[in-house]
Amino acid sequence: MKLQLTIALALCSAAAFAQQALYNFNAVTSPQLNADASVTFRYVNPAADSVKVIGDFTAPEGAEAIPSVLSMTRGSDGVWETTTPPLAPELYSYRLEVDGVATNDPSNVYIARDVTTLSNIFLIDGGYRGLYGINDVPHGTVSHPWYHSDLLGTDRRLTVYTPAGYETSGRNYPVLYLLHGMGGDENAWSELGRATQILDNMIASGEVRPMIVVMPNGNVDMPAAPGESHLGLTVPTPQLPHSMEGTYEKSFPEIVSFIDANYRTRRDKASRAIAGLSMGGFHSLHISKDYPDMMDYVGLFSAAVWPFMEEAKATYADTEAKLEKQFADAPRLYYIAIGSDDFLYDTNKQYRALLDSKDYPYTYIETPGGHMWKNWRHYLVDFLPRLFK
Amino acid sequence: MKLQLTIALALCSAAAFAQQALYNFNAVTSPQLNADASVTFRYVNPAADSVKVIGDFTAPEGAEAIPSVLSMTRGSDGVWETTTPPLAPELYSYRLEVDGVATNDPSNVYIARDVTTLSNIFLIDGGYRGLYGINDVPHGTVSHPWYHSDLLGTDRRLTVYTPAGYETSGRNYPVLYLLHGMGGDENAWSELGRATQILDNMIASGEVRPMIVVMPNGNVDMPAAPGESHLGLTVPTPQLPHSMEGTYEKSFPEIVSFIDANYRTRRDKASRAIAGLSMGGFHSLHISKDYPDMMDYVGLFSAAVWPFMEEAKATYADTEAKLEKQFADAPRLYYIAIGSDDFLYDTNKQYRALLDSKDYPYTYIETPGGHMWKNWRHYLVDFLPRLFK
Repeated sequence: MKLQLTIALALCSAAAFAQQALYNFNAVTSPQLNADASVTFRYVNPAADSVKVIGDFTAPEGAEAIPSVLSMTRGSDGVWETTTPPLAPELYSYRLEVDGVATNDPSNVYIARDVTTLSNIFLIDGGYRGLYGINDVPHGTVSHPWYHSDLLGTDRRLTVYTPAGYETSGRNYPVLYLLHGMGGDENAWSELGRATQILDNMIASGEVRPMIVVMPNGNVDMPAAPGESHLGLTVPTPQLPHSMEGTYEKSFPEIVSFIDANYRTRRDKASRAIAGLSMGGFHSLHISKDYPDMMDYVGLFSAAVWPFMEEAKATYADTEAKLEKQFADAPRLYYIAIGSDDFLYDTNKQYRALLDSKDYPYTYIETPGGHMWKNWRHYLVDFLPRLFK
Repeated sequence: MKLQLTIALALCSAAAFAQQALYNFNAVTSPQLNADASVTFRYVNPAADSVKVIGDFTAPEGAEAIPSVLSMTRGSDGVWETTTPPLAPELYSYRLEVDGVATNDPSNVYIARDVTTLSNIFLIDGGYRGLYGINDVPHGTVSHPWYHSDLLGTDRRLTVYTPAGYETSGRNYPVLYLLHGMGGDENAWSELGRATQILDNMIASGEVRPMIVVMPNGNVDMPAAPGESHLGLTVPTPQLPHSMEGTYEKSFPEIVSFIDANYRTRRDKASRAIAGLSMGGFHSLHISKDYPDMMDYVGLFSAAVWPFMEEAKATYADTEAKLEKQFADAPRLYYIAIGSDDFLYDTNKQYRALLDSKDYPYTYIETPGGHMWKNWRHYLVDFLPRLFK
C-alpha cells in the first residue's frame, strides 16, 4: 500500500492536465447505490441556481411510479444532492441538468452512447432477474473481426460472442444474428443491450444453449461504429441513408459466409436465428423472408415493419409473396414483441393482422413501455431460451 | 432518405428521456476540426460567466507552444467559442471548465477514461505519422478472452490483438505482451494507446512483423477493467494494493500458458517480447528478469523502477542477482524510453547507471515531455519495428 500511495502522490503533485497521467480524487460519490436499492446523486457546483437529475427510473412492481426528473437540493457546502425511491433491478441511464444545460455526472465514469447522446449509467441489483451483472460464471469471448463486403465495397466490423469453452471444445455451435436499431451499431447489443452478460449468465444456468452470437453493423454507409471506422472521431449522424432500401438484406449472406468460414458453426436452418430491435427487426423480417432456407428462428423486437408504410411499398413490393414462401415451411419460431406505448405499436398490429389473415403461426409478447432498451433487453432474455431446442 | 427521416422524426417527437430511444440533434458542432489543423470548440450556456477549454494541445514542430487553458468567448446567442492555433498531428484530450466546474463537452460523444477521469478526445491528421487513424488497410481482430489464474484465484480478462489474416493463415506468430500503468487496465493500450491502429497501419506498411499482442490486466486485485468485472459499475480506485509486491510477476506465466494454449504462437524466447508503461514498465523489468528464458525483447516506457526506492527493497532484494542472470544471455533488445520532464526520470537515470556499471547492453531513447500517453504512443511506434527481426 505504502508504495502505491507514494506513486499516486507523485503523479498527483506532478499533474498538469494530461501532461502527466491524471488522478482525479473525486470530492463526492455519485451515484451512490444504497442498500434499499435507492440511489443518491451528488454534484459539486456552488454557483448553480438549479440542478436536476433526469433518468429512466423504474419503480419495483406494485410501487408508485418514479418521475423521470428529480430536483436536487443544495447543501451549505455547495454540494447538490437527491435520493430516488427504491428502484427495480435494471440498468439505468441518466444525465444532469445544471441551470437548464444538460451535462453528464462528472463523478460517474460509466457512460454510454446511444445514437448521438451520452448518458451516465448504473446498475441496480444485477439488473432484470440478476442477468446483467458480471457474475462468477464462465465468460464467453467478445471479438471484433472485420469481414469484407464485395457488395458494399469495404471491410466492415463485427462484434462476435463465442461462448465459454469455445476455443478448446472442438464443437460446432448454432448461431444467432442479433441486429441493432437505427442510429445504433455493432457495439449496441454488447453495451446498452448487456447481451454479453445475459448470454454468460443464461448459458451458465443451463437456460440457454451455448451459441455464437454475431452482432453486425446494419448501416450500409457505416463500416463500423462511430470512432471505429475510417471516418475517425467525427460527429455521428442519426440519419443513415440507404439502410432500409434493400441493400443490407442483399449483402447479408456475405456475413453468414464469413462467420461460417471463420468459426465452428452449425450450418443448417435449424441452427440459425436472426433477431433485431427497431430497424434490426425490419432487417430480420426481410432477411428471414428473402432467404427462407437460412434461419429457423426469427425475432422482431419493437420492429419497424415499414413495408406497410407508403414510402417503402416500392422497394418491398414482393413482401407478401416472399412471406408466403417463408411460411410454406414455417420457421420453428417467429417471435414478435412490442411495448404497448411503442410508437411502432400500430404498424406491428397491422403486421400481425396480416399474419393472422394468412394463418401464419407466430408468438406474440406485449409488454408495458415504449421504444426503449429496457424492453429490448427483456425481450432478449425471453427469446434466448426458445432457440435451438 | 425520406424513409429514414420519417423514422427519425417519429422517434424525436416520441422521445421522453430514455422512455423512447433518444436523438439529440446537437445545436452546435464541437470540436470542429478545421482545414489548417486548428480546432474550434463551442458550448451552449447563456447563463455561464466563464467557460474555458483545458487540453493537452501540442504545437507543430517549430511553432510557438500552445497554453493548456484557453478562455472561450461568449457570443450574443449564448454560444461560447474558441479556436486553437494549428495543432501537431496527435490524439488530444480535453475538458471544459464552466464557472470553475469541470465538465465534458456535451457535443462530443468521444470520451475516454484515464484512471478515474473522463476526457473528451479528438484526433488531428491521423495522429503521429498518421498511424492513429483507421485507414484503408487490413484490420486485425481485437478480442477479450478470459483466462483462469490459479494463483490469483479468479478468471481474468485480456485484450488480444491478432493480426489481419490470422484466422485463416495457419501460421504461428510471435507475441508481444503489452502492459498498462497504475490505474490502467486491459483496455488502456487499445483505447488511449491507439495500439490497434498503430499495429494495423505498421503491419500493413511492412514496417512491423505480423504479431499477436496480448494486453493483460496488471492489477492483482482487479480481474477486469472497471465495469467489466464482478465489481460492476462501482467507482474505480486509483490506488490498487498488491500490484507491485511480486504477486503479479509470479502469476504471469499463467497468461503465457493460456495464450500458447489458445492461439497459434511461436514459443521460443526470440519470438516473445514484453513492454509496458509506468507500472507496466516495472512489471516488464521484473517479469523479464524473473523468467530470463522467456522474452528476448524488453521495453520499459517511463518505467517505475522502484526496486531502487526504500519501500520496495525487501520485496525485490534479489533484483541485481537476477539481472545478472538475465544479462548473462542478454536480451536481443532491452529498450528504455523516458521523457525529460517525467517524474520518474531520476530513478530511470539511477537504473541506467546500474546497467552501465555492469556493462549490460540497452537502447536508450529520451524525448521531451513527461509521464503522458503522447510519449507512450510514440515509444510504441518506435519499439514495434525493432521486434522479431
